[in-house]
Amino acid sequence: MATGTPQQLVYGAVLFYFLQSDVFHCQPFSISFQQPSDCGAESYFDISSLSCGKCGPNQVSSKPGLSCLCQTGFRVLSSNGASITCQQCPNSKPGITQDGYGCIRCPDSLGEDGRCQCPRGRILVERDLNGNLLEEATCEICNGGEPAFSAPDPTGTRCVRCDDSFINTSLSCACGAPNILAGGMCFPPNSLPTSVISNVNFAQLALPVPSAWFSNFLYSSAAACLLFSNLTACQTLGNMCVLNMHSSSSLTNDACGLYNTVYRATAPQGVSQDISYWRANLPWLYYGDQPGLASRVLRTDPLPVSFSFKGSNKNTDFELTAAVYTVGGEFTGWKSVGAGNLQLCPDTVARQQATFTFGTAYKQSCVLSVSDLLSGHPEPLFYDVFLVLPQTTEGRRLLAVPSLILNQQFNGQFINQGTNMNNWYLTRRLVLVDTLSGREKNLNTSPRVIRVASDIKIGFQLVPNTQRGQVYPPLITVSYSDILITNPDTQTVSVSFSLEYEMDQNEARIKTDIALGVLGGVAVVHSLLKTASWKRRIASPLIDLQTIMKFLLFYAGDLANVFFVITVGTGLYWLIFFKAQQFVYVLLPLPAQEERFVTYVGCAFALKTLQFIHKLLVQLSVDIFFIDWERPRGKGSKHIEASGDSKNAAAPVSIWRTYFVANEWNEIQTVRKINPTFQVMTVLFLLEVVGFSSLALRDPWSTLQRAPEAYKPPYSLVLRFGLSCALWLCIGLIQVIYFTVFHERFVEDKIRQFVDLCSISNISVLALSHRCFGYYIHGRSVHGHADTNMEEMNTNLKREAENLCGQRGLLPNSDTQTFQISITNRLRGHYDRILEPLSRRHAPSRLVDASANPFEQSTKAYHSMNRFLGSFIDHAHREQDYIVKDKLLFERVVGMEFIEATDKSIFYNDESCSFSDILFYGNEATLLIFDTLFFCVVDLGSQNFILAAVLTYLQQLGFRTICYNVGRRNLANKTLVDKRFLI
Amino acid sequence: MATGTPQQLVYGAVLFYFLQSDVFHCQPFSISFQQPSDCGAESYFDISSLSCGKCGPNQVSSKPGLSCLCQTGFRVLSSNGASITCQQCPNSKPGITQDGYGCIRCPDSLGEDGRCQCPRGRILVERDLNGNLLEEATCEICNGGEPAFSAPDPTGTRCVRCDDSFINTSLSCACGAPNILAGGMCFPPNSLPTSVISNVNFAQLALPVPSAWFSNFLYSSAAACLLFSNLTACQTLGNMCVLNMHSSSSLTNDACGLYNTVYRATAPQGVSQDISYWRANLPWLYYGDQPGLASRVLRTDPLPVSFSFKGSNKNTDFELTAAVYTVGGEFTGWKSVGAGNLQLCPDTVARQQATFTFGTAYKQSCVLSVSDLLSGHPEPLFYDVFLVLPQTTEGRRLLAVPSLILNQQFNGQFINQGTNMNNWYLTRRLVLVDTLSGREKNLNTSPRVIRVASDIKIGFQLVPNTQRGQVYPPLITVSYSDILITNPDTQTVSVSFSLEYEMDQNEARIKTDIALGVLGGVAVVHSLLKTASWKRRIASPLIDLQTIMKFLLFYAGDLANVFFVITVGTGLYWLIFFKAQQFVYVLLPLPAQEERFVTYVGCAFALKTLQFIHKLLVQLSVDIFFIDWERPRGKGSKHIEASGDSKNAAAPVSIWRTYFVANEWNEIQTVRKINPTFQVMTVLFLLEVVGFSSLALRDPWSTLQRAPEAYKPPYSLVLRFGLSCALWLCIGLIQVIYFTVFHERFVEDKIRQFVDLCSISNISVLALSHRCFGYYIHGRSVHGHADTNMEEMNTNLKREAENLCGQRGLLPNSDTQTFQISITNRLRGHYDRILEPLSRRHAPSRLVDASANPFEQSTKAYHSMNRFLGSFIDHAHREQDYIVKDKLLFERVVGMEFIEATDKSIFYNDESCSFSDILFYGNEATLLIFDTLFFCVVDLGSQNFILAAVLTYLQQLGFRTICYNVGRRNLANKTLVDKRFLI
Repeated sequence: MATGTPQQLVYGAVLFYFLQSDVFHCQPFSISFQQPSDCGAESYFDISSLSCGKCGPNQVSSKPGLSCLCQTGFRVLSSNGASITCQQCPNSKPGITQDGYGCIRCPDSLGEDGRCQCPRGRILVERDLNGNLLEEATCEICNGGEPAFSAPDPTGTRCVRCDDSFINTSLSCACGAPNILAGGMCFPPNSLPTSVISNVNFAQLALPVPSAWFSNFLYSSAAACLLFSNLTACQTLGNMCVLNMHSSSSLTNDACGLYNTVYRATAPQGVSQDISYWRANLPWLYYGDQPGLASRVLRTDPLPVSFSFKGSNKNTDFELTAAVYTVGGEFTGWKSVGAGNLQLCPDTVARQQATFTFGTAYKQSCVLSVSDLLSGHPEPLFYDVFLVLPQTTEGRRLLAVPSLILNQQFNGQFINQGTNMNNWYLTRRLVLVDTLSGREKNLNTSPRVIRVASDIKIGFQLVPNTQRGQVYPPLITVSYSDILITNPDTQTVSVSFSLEYEMDQNEARIKTDIALGVLGGVAVVHSLLKTASWKRRIASPLIDLQTIMKFLLFYAGDLANVFFVITVGTGLYWLIFFKAQQFVYVLLPLPAQEERFVTYVGCAFALKTLQFIHKLLVQLSVDIFFIDWERPRGKGSKHIEASGDSKNAAAPVSIWRTYFVANEWNEIQTVRKINPTFQVMTVLFLLEVVGFSSLALRDPWSTLQRAPEAYKPPYSLVLRFGLSCALWLCIGLIQVIYFTVFHERFVEDKIRQFVDLCSISNISVLALSHRCFGYYIHGRSVHGHADTNMEEMNTNLKREAENLCGQRGLLPNSDTQTFQISITNRLRGHYDRILEPLSRRHAPSRLVDASANPFEQSTKAYHSMNRFLGSFIDHAHREQDYIVKDKLLFERVVGMEFIEATDKSIFYNDESCSFSDILFYGNEATLLIFDTLFFCVVDLGSQNFILAAVLTYLQQLGFRTICYNVGRRNLANKTLVDKRFLI
Repeated sequence: MATGTPQQLVYGAVLFYFLQSDVFHCQPFSISFQQPSDCGAESYFDISSLSCGKCGPNQVSSKPGLSCLCQTGFRVLSSNGASITCQQCPNSKPGITQDGYGCIRCPDSLGEDGRCQCPRGRILVERDLNGNLLEEATCEICNGGEPAFSAPDPTGTRCVRCDDSFINTSLSCACGAPNILAGGMCFPPNSLPTSVISNVNFAQLALPVPSAWFSNFLYSSAAACLLFSNLTACQTLGNMCVLNMHSSSSLTNDACGLYNTVYRATAPQGVSQDISYWRANLPWLYYGDQPGLASRVLRTDPLPVSFSFKGSNKNTDFELTAAVYTVGGEFTGWKSVGAGNLQLCPDTVARQQATFTFGTAYKQSCVLSVSDLLSGHPEPLFYDVFLVLPQTTEGRRLLAVPSLILNQQFNGQFINQGTNMNNWYLTRRLVLVDTLSGREKNLNTSPRVIRVASDIKIGFQLVPNTQRGQVYPPLITVSYSDILITNPDTQTVSVSFSLEYEMDQNEARIKTDIALGVLGGVAVVHSLLKTASWKRRIASPLIDLQTIMKFLLFYAGDLANVFFVITVGTGLYWLIFFKAQQFVYVLLPLPAQEERFVTYVGCAFALKTLQFIHKLLVQLSVDIFFIDWERPRGKGSKHIEASGDSKNAAAPVSIWRTYFVANEWNEIQTVRKINPTFQVMTVLFLLEVVGFSSLALRDPWSTLQRAPEAYKPPYSLVLRFGLSCALWLCIGLIQVIYFTVFHERFVEDKIRQFVDLCSISNISVLALSHRCFGYYIHGRSVHGHADTNMEEMNTNLKREAENLCGQRGLLPNSDTQTFQISITNRLRGHYDRILEPLSRRHAPSRLVDASANPFEQSTKAYHSMNRFLGSFIDHAHREQDYIVKDKLLFERVVGMEFIEATDKSIFYNDESCSFSDILFYGNEATLLIFDTLFFCVVDLGSQNFILAAVLTYLQQLGFRTICYNVGRRNLANKTLVDKRFLI
């Protein structure tokens, strides 16, 4: 079995091969792929049929392989377009003429190509002046002396005037000792050290490479520059220094050393363009080496340009232009910096147009193949970058843009990698891709190492406190990568090009710190006040651990608000001032500068969560009881004491009203002033569909919808936060206004409805949020009975509508049904005693009276409580009475009662239904801010509004479900209503 | 006032000028912008200082402006790098030597440049063979006769062998009559018409432009190709035909006419590469002109390549390569088609890599500036495009890719713009940008018109019924735009490059039609059945207009389901089979082919909306009544008749239980089997955050998260629909399963809870969805009384929990509380009569008994109804009795009762709570499908999942609110419970 399988594989492969080849032979209009290099030495590549064709007899293919030539020793007999015929030359005339058509006798030797060859310094003459072919070619000597000054031309067939350097140096076309012949020129001796360092040091690889380019031309460029002021030679010398990363050392015979030698020696020539670092005839490479020069150059004079984002003076576009030189020092012209120039990554037209827009954070990265770089950049180009200043009456002016080469070394130390601007050495002239200096043997081999400007960053800094959009000159920071060529087809290099705009953020930071300090102090005071109020409400005078914990919880809530206010303020500040500014005077903090802000948001969220959970726990553990005022019918007894015992005698009072009210209370526990899902959906809609999210992009535009192909800068976290907070709070506010002003007035007000229901069902609600503080809803029916049939209910409702009965209030002739109550400790003690048997149920079993039926206990407790609270409200207890009064304005503001209820309980009139403070409804601010922060924190973490919306929805759903269920259990426990009826 | 303003403006401008110039002078490191062309005739551009420098005395600037030359009549005396000195030549030797360093006597005239000039055909000799300067230059004649065959070289300083065409034609270097000299070559007469059409016709502009290129080289190329088989001349001729858009006519002396003449004349030379349309030595331009050839070429032989999306044989990449020729006919090599070649728009590296991926719909468009095109494409390049076939043992083979030029004309008619493939004329060789043929006077002027390949589309067609991923050869469709140059800097041209993959969609269409027919028929039968059931339930035997309307409504619902099934099926088919296929056998329908599908979805949605609204209206107008079984206490009377009258005597039966039950019914009206908002959020989360939306992209990949910079093909509407339907239905299903299996069993089952509540509260529910059909929930308390206090309630509940009392069912010893009921027409008549006084309320006022109090009426009706229905359930009415039975299985399946309730009403046991059919709960399928379709339709319209989610949420919210409110009003009307208690 095991042996059969490979066998089958082989059969399969063979079969497949035959099938495949069969298919290929059938394929019409297909040709086999051949290129000129595929054709052998005796074939040529036929450009019309795109295939190799055989050359005729005695023929070989030419160098590019596109045609046939006669082989050595044969001349062209006839040529007819596509084909030639060749004929051997007779022995008497063994040489072939230069044009290939004739045979000739050679004066000297025969070259490898069958042509005649002359010795060095002589020219070959085959035809006379009139074009007649000679029988025998001659080798003539060129007269190099004065006044002829002639030497063979590059083809070796004519005598022409020789290079000026020969004539200048030696007054002849020969460069005899002691003159030095270098780079095709002749130099007098002793001008420069003749032994130059022609190694290029690739510092990242710690690899010095002997460079053919440097060994060929370094000395000659330097000498020609120094001695003959040859402009291209000077540029070539400068370029070599640039290829060395502007790195210099104490040696003077490397490229930059020679440049500096020439620079010093040519001081008498003066400067170019009034710039003291720019020597005439030399390229400008360095900004001098005084300490602190960099900060003087970069931070002294602002640009004479006002950048403005809007209005009639709108000016955001700027232009960089570069004087471009070849490696040989030729000036190729001014090129606008952009696609291809400095920006190595290809990109779409629409995206590239966004590059040089002031205020638009731009970054473009890509991974380039090394083989593409090698073929696309056979020779390096050199860029002297300038910023184009606006047109004036004097014409256009350009500002030299300094560059900071991170790879620059001095004596082997990297000198520009620190952050202290004073230690930087600014330079000029950049190279993008250097595939030349890494060529070792000669200039036609492929390089061993290439160097790529892998990270180019152009940074602008706003002038502090400017109101007119002024900026300092930009700085180009360049970092080069050295790549050892091993396999160009698979090697890649990642390059990036970015523009950054920044301003000094210290002032903003100080202002934030001050705000934080001030508001933090206020928060402490506020928390202390709240703690004091809480102490009073629980009627405990001691300062114990619980008090401190409570203080810390209150403080967390207040501090959360402080952080929230500060972060929202900061976010809105940047959103409004950055996006709406006309003349630029603020720029966004860079991503690295946003960390502090994100920390603040995190603090706000963490503290708010603490506060939220605290409030939730308070709400879910509130003490509540429904007081049923209904008296049993048929007996006419008005004594409360009687109703409990007479259960069998008279018709019992129906519990269903209590069930109904409890059910409603259960439902309004999680009612909010806004629709939270609608909130999430609307924010999501505005951000992602309407396109508000575009406002958080790091660019100056405030349009909502962007073209899909346009450049999209990265998002600013600060703007995202500011934007989503603003939207969230705005929509929350609009919803609150809609619900309170319109919906609750004209459609449905759940809270007032509940108070009405209490009244109609003859049930009062006592809810104690603290030990001695709580809320009371007076629900005693004005009709005396509510437990009745439909007819009577309708009559009662009608009577009330027609004002035929008393008012609903607790006090006679008042309408006030809702109260904040401050009860005495004694009352609370009584209250607790009634509930004691029930709470004991959860105690360890041995304490429980085994005989006691929990149902009976519960019913008994319910009736006792009902009786007790009813009589309390009816002023039936002498020792536990209460008074009704209005709360002082200041008491309302501070949220604390000034009078302690020691002797009598105090009922404060409360028209504003503040019992909703123990529902979701009364804590809308906390909930809304918590939701806002939750949304923003998820978004800051994921930069995804959709995820934030979905998680916020789930969080809301989760907390609502938890609250509903826990609240329901609490309600069942405290009101003694069976949980099964809370549905 | 008016006069002052200009004055002030002037002052302002002057002030501004001073300020500005002051600023500029202060700006350090700034230079004024100058370019070589800015320097005048006597200045040169100093490449080191980037400024203009003055030339020395007697000097002028050179042509490029980078150096100075001696002016005419002056020789260079000395040259020292940057500067030269000039000296006037003496009158005896007025001429300057060619090298500029010497003075010489001229034999003939002096040229404008001060050099000596010789007459045509002679050469200028200034130095002797050894390079010694002559005192007087000579003009030598070149010997053009045999055997010297020499003529002046282009510089006019040497005699060299002249062109072969002269020698071949006239056996000398002169081209005497009757031979024809053209394009630098010499042709014998009578071979071709000498008057050629050198106008290029830009058909879009209806503008023939006399072309310098054509007039210079058309005749000579054609002649050299025909007579000398000159390969580059043949290519040049072919290129001119391509520049003419391959357009031919009956004339034979335009470019394509000449090409065809040569093509026919060179028939004896045979063909290249065994391709019969490819003449040896000529470029291949046409695929012949037989009718139907195009479809034979494009649809006969599939490619020998298997495209496969997945697995070990994964093969999606293909490569196009092109033989590239210059306009002069030179072959520049094979170039891979991609960035820059054929694709004119620049794009990022990552996006370009996606171009040639089989199955990935690719489109790239951009707007290019005409000035960029002019500078980037000074000469057109010509592309012979081939598809690279996979490597075999015989080496690589290439398949010629035909192209369809939409601009091609024959006798002035566009011949390729129809859709019938049989009429197409396929061609080879493309040109991208032609800035050459529009040059009118000479080749150095700027063109009057340019032509750009503005729309290139490469289309692949799948072989029908292939299982191995075979495709037919691709076709390149090209459309050119002619642009009249007016202002190149502002003119733009939009270009696009796209790849399309299509398959024959007829089979899919036919299958869809068959499914639609079959299912449509089934739908008719089903609707008829439903209509019959409905007729029975409303107890109406007539077929009237209402019946037909009802049938149409039912049919709409069924047809909606049919359309839904078909569209979801289609969507899933494409989603699964396209994305999951290994060997390619299906390809997505193109956007144009999706229209039919979108129409189906639209039909499904419209019909479903009709059905949904119909169901809603039925639900919102259901007749419902709560039967209260409670008897007043204290009298012990068991007679129902008595209880209504004794309202004042005994304690009234409390209405609060009815309120409670009504409230609960009101709440469960809009309860669904799923959480709809959670549904929306989850779908949105999966689509946009998890990234399922990537599955709807027109590419073969099924990865969810794509790199942000990667190429993103357009979305397929079919896939979007299939994907969102699949997700929506899946999550809906999971939710339904979770709610029915887990949540309703372990957490809360609102429906069963309601049935329980009925039982506990001693209230039955009678709901009539049709005139004679409805549902009955038996809620008679097993304890006799429910209107009692907490103690008794708890006792009752406990007793029931301990099985100490009877069962809750309608029949003794049964548990069945829920029934479908089919009532007699008589019973319904009685029912309606009781409610009649109430319905009359809404009638015109004169009919209303003015004395009747609506409250009283309502209460009276309530009590009558309660008494009547109670007695009916208690079998108290002889003439209106009922029987209880089980429903047949078939009756359940068909949804229709076989027995008509004529004599006795029939109660069918219904354990499955089918009364939920008149709630949202029982119609989950309709609601879910409606939501799904709503989401999908919004998405198809907007291609925005977020918008679809938001609108779906709003739609759900809206319908829920409407239903809740209208349902509440209906409940209040029908059950006579005051609306204020339904909260």
